[in-house]
Amino acid sequence: MAAPIDFYFDFGSPYGYLASLRVDDVAAKHGREVIWRPMLLGAVFKTEGTQPLSLYPLKGVYFKHDCFRTARRLGVPFMLPGNFPPNTITAQRAYYWLRGNDPDKAKTFARAIYHAYFGEGRDVTQAEVVVGIAAAEGDVDSDDVMAAVQDQAVKDMLREATDNAIARGVFGSPFIVVDGEAFWGNDRLDEVDEWLGTGGW
Amino acid sequence: MAAPIDFYFDFGSPYGYLASLRVDDVAAKHGREVIWRPMLLGAVFKTEGTQPLSLYPLKGVYFKHDCFRTARRLGVPFMLPGNFPPNTITAQRAYYWLRGNDPDKAKTFARAIYHAYFGEGRDVTQAEVVVGIAAAEGDVDSDDVMAAVQDQAVKDMLREATDNAIARGVFGSPFIVVDGEAFWGNDRLDEVDEWLGTGGW
Repeated sequence: MAAPIDFYFDFGSPYGYLASLRVDDVAAKHGREVIWRPMLLGAVFKTEGTQPLSLYPLKGVYFKHDCFRTARRLGVPFMLPGNFPPNTITAQRAYYWLRGNDPDKAKTFARAIYHAYFGEGRDVTQAEVVVGIAAAEGDVDSDDVMAAVQDQAVKDMLREATDNAIARGVFGSPFIVVDGEAFWGNDRLDEVDEWLGTGGW
Repeated sequence: MAAPIDFYFDFGSPYGYLASLRVDDVAAKHGREVIWRPMLLGAVFKTEGTQPLSLYPLKGVYFKHDCFRTARRLGVPFMLPGNFPPNTITAQRAYYWLRGNDPDKAKTFARAIYHAYFGEGRDVTQAEVVVGIAAAEGDVDSDDVMAAVQDQAVKDMLREATDNAIARGVFGSPFIVVDGEAFWGNDRLDEVDEWLGTGGW
């Protein structure tokens, strides 16, 4: 089987959410798996000298309109909760801890976090919410998750994941790497599909 | 006939160049015309607090690779001259002056400027180069063009065009507005096509 695709994203990224709904299907069409790699977009932005989209005066207005428009086009639920952009550090730590036990369940957890926030407007910045979703979707004990997200080793996993993303050139979310070829943005998923099908151009 | 589409761009924008090669064809499929509206992207970036893509450490690397990749996909000539990002103020003034005489010839001139820079690597920051292209493509006298690009009334046209773009929410190039609906980026041209065909979603 050909090498897996890397899917870099932040749980607080609307375009990451939209891409998360399709990326595995796109890859599966071509016999590929996808490794989900959440990273701290705030740290990425700091390195790059950029900010969350919502903070730019004109791009921020466009981006909000465009997210809703793109979600309508895809026929998927979407909302932008009042606390956007959210602090996703706890959810991302929980992901890496779950992934150490079971990568498939970690991905199920990731989908559930995205749906909870952008689909239902739940406050996934709260540790209790993250722990509840992790326990339900990851089939793990709540106390174990709560301990894990405060564990230095787990914190280090997320920091390393973020450092590795930056070292690989990731500057936004979603950011997809196929055989060393990088594609930035949900609106490049069709191009990823074409690249996988043709082997590139 | 339905209202024309607005195509905002800067002559120094690679993605603007790539979109310029297709935007009129996309519009014509749906019986629409396109008004080309060059504007000073530097002024837009200043308002927005952003920079030319090439100045961002990671996005700059990606963007250079992606422009060449996109040009290969479209099968069009592309290069990034050493003076990128170029100062396009003279070329853009010449455009607005030509447009006052003949909008079609102004568009022909715009295509020629884009091709000269991104297709052939000519230095379109030089007034002599701009004047030569304007005289040839716009069927006007060289001395008249040279006088025009230094004329305060023509300078004001470009400044007003830039102010109007910002007032309309333009924060990058290309930026396409269809019946009040904005689409940013060359990679949204297929979506513009779909929007024109369906009336939106």
